[in-house]
Amino acid sequence: MSRFARRLADIAPFRVMEVLARARALEAAGRSIVHMEIGEPDFPTAAPIVAAANAALAAGHTHYLPALGLDALRAAVAESYPPGARPAPEDVVITPGASGALLLALAALVNPGDQVLVADPGYPCNRHFVRLLEGEPVAVQVGPASGYQLTAELVRSHWTPRTVAVLVSSPSNPTGTLVPDDEMARIARAVAELGGTLIVDEIYHGLTYGTDAVSVLAHTRDAFVVNSFSKYYGMTGWRLGWLVVPRAYRAAIERLAQNVFIAASTPAQHAALAAFTPEVRAELERRRAIFRERRDYLLPALQALGFVVPIVPEGAFYIYADCSRFTDDSARFAFDLLERAGVAITPGADFGEHESTRYVRFSYATAMENLQEGVRRIGAALAGRGGT
Amino acid sequence: MSRFARRLADIAPFRVMEVLARARALEAAGRSIVHMEIGEPDFPTAAPIVAAANAALAAGHTHYLPALGLDALRAAVAESYPPGARPAPEDVVITPGASGALLLALAALVNPGDQVLVADPGYPCNRHFVRLLEGEPVAVQVGPASGYQLTAELVRSHWTPRTVAVLVSSPSNPTGTLVPDDEMARIARAVAELGGTLIVDEIYHGLTYGTDAVSVLAHTRDAFVVNSFSKYYGMTGWRLGWLVVPRAYRAAIERLAQNVFIAASTPAQHAALAAFTPEVRAELERRRAIFRERRDYLLPALQALGFVVPIVPEGAFYIYADCSRFTDDSARFAFDLLERAGVAITPGADFGEHESTRYVRFSYATAMENLQEGVRRIGAALAGRGGT
Repeated sequence: MSRFARRLADIAPFRVMEVLARARALEAAGRSIVHMEIGEPDFPTAAPIVAAANAALAAGHTHYLPALGLDALRAAVAESYPPGARPAPEDVVITPGASGALLLALAALVNPGDQVLVADPGYPCNRHFVRLLEGEPVAVQVGPASGYQLTAELVRSHWTPRTVAVLVSSPSNPTGTLVPDDEMARIARAVAELGGTLIVDEIYHGLTYGTDAVSVLAHTRDAFVVNSFSKYYGMTGWRLGWLVVPRAYRAAIERLAQNVFIAASTPAQHAALAAFTPEVRAELERRRAIFRERRDYLLPALQALGFVVPIVPEGAFYIYADCSRFTDDSARFAFDLLERAGVAITPGADFGEHESTRYVRFSYATAMENLQEGVRRIGAALAGRGGT
Repeated sequence: MSRFARRLADIAPFRVMEVLARARALEAAGRSIVHMEIGEPDFPTAAPIVAAANAALAAGHTHYLPALGLDALRAAVAESYPPGARPAPEDVVITPGASGALLLALAALVNPGDQVLVADPGYPCNRHFVRLLEGEPVAVQVGPASGYQLTAELVRSHWTPRTVAVLVSSPSNPTGTLVPDDEMARIARAVAELGGTLIVDEIYHGLTYGTDAVSVLAHTRDAFVVNSFSKYYGMTGWRLGWLVVPRAYRAAIERLAQNVFIAASTPAQHAALAAFTPEVRAELERRRAIFRERRDYLLPALQALGFVVPIVPEGAFYIYADCSRFTDDSARFAFDLLERAGVAITPGADFGEHESTRYVRFSYATAMENLQEGVRRIGAALAGRGGT
């Protein structure tokens, strides 16, 4: 007699969770597993951030904060943007992770049946949030030709009378690719001309290599910007993010925040105040350099094994690799690799339907020696010699 | 050119936020304000819970946890129920506050246009969550005759072919009243017979005076139970709650949790493990006794001033008082009281439309001396002598 809302049929489970569960089972049985499936930094939260949390707790900061967040943190976030892209502190809303930010933005924009354009491949939660709110995520197929990203042209060609918003992730999970700054400006113009709203997920900003990602706020103040303390700032488990809100939506977003989460975590907000000190910044930049070294090792190593990566990923900590030389079923390939070689990776199916059986995602959020061991094992497995 | 989703028109701002903002402004100008508007315990989080957070952070627990929560915490929550109402640990899902729990339950149940019965007066976020997901909250008028709570009879008489669920809060915010245990059993039976799903908000369990609230799980395993570490456990700012999930929904809820919040806060979950120790339990019971003393003072004191409270509130930390002897506009009454007497209370309009202009909510989540001073000031103001 159980009754399930229809949206559940459109919210797929993550395959990577099965990979992870199987990997843990193999580890429990004594196997060594190289984890290249996990989408969070392997570094712990920087010590000064933890110290700030401890100090806040010692000072008794355990009560609710205002729905929009701690004023000092909103100001610090605003200040972290370069002058040409800097929002006012009042435009910054502190949220429970990027999840909370995306929920607010979409709840303010999307009516049932409204379409929101998203890239396929792309981060699955993004389309699922649209569906949660009874909007219709429209998966726009993207490939190497556009750096696996939306373009202004793709936005225009997929626009319908029902389209209300475009959701761009730059850098992208799973591809690690960025929307070039000039293309982002064109997308912003196109969306404005079409009468829609642009939402940009910038959660991997800070984790770019050889380039600095420019916020869409350099081009428009009409976009919603989703960001997070999880990735660059290394605070995944604290569940803290932010949303930069176009001024016209400020009151509506405050009302939604009061209702859907009351406020983001108080200890986490006090902790995050320490994320903007020169000391922490130096540590985060050191980590960024390590991520870059890993990418610079892993990308050619995978290519040497026969994986095809046509666009150099410049951000995040992912390589989205075409494995069609080895398989026509990337999910089976991933599970086989786990069983035979003891290397856990994520099947392309987690990121959409467009050619997803050709792709797998490698995460380099693990130490260099693990990456080297993973590459050795994959090489051996592909050569038919087994792995572990 | 901004475009607002229609749901925003149905999600009203909290009047109490205006009260609070004005109170803060008066305080900044040097006025003394007695805060009887605030809906969170005035006690800080108990020291052993804070110590557990410190220890977890020192041990490096800053990464994501599984979507359903820390197994040890799920087990501890399950164990906290008495045997006859005890869920299995796997039935307990740890969430970012009760907000996260309610979002999961409603997302799993409600299609656009589906009706969910809620009590009016009642906690406004509950109906707003239904609206967020494009369901239709149906406000059932309740008054002293049913202890300001839904009954099986009210459920039956308001049921339509579009009704899919009933959301009961016991103890209630704003009224502090409980659904009697036998009536809760009847409601559970009625909802089952009607083919719907019962959701019970038990976030004020533990904070009952002269009685122990019985979980609906004593009567059925088909209900969703929303609960929280905020109120009894004194962890508001940590944003941690839980949802007890009927078994048939477990996989669906896991999928939703992965997508809508990834996982609840890691430091908060480790901290909460300490909430179940005898030492903390003793401290929480001491606080419960203090809340009871405050209620036992405030209720007759308000009645002596001329406020009408026909049903003794047995739980939470609220008194929902009929002030129609003094005003026909409880919102103006509340704002006048703030200006003239320096006492902040919450207008009834925050809790619905049913006779809400007759009522105001007093919170006794503040120290006895503040309550005494508040009563003195209100008495003086009502006698026309001013307050501060």
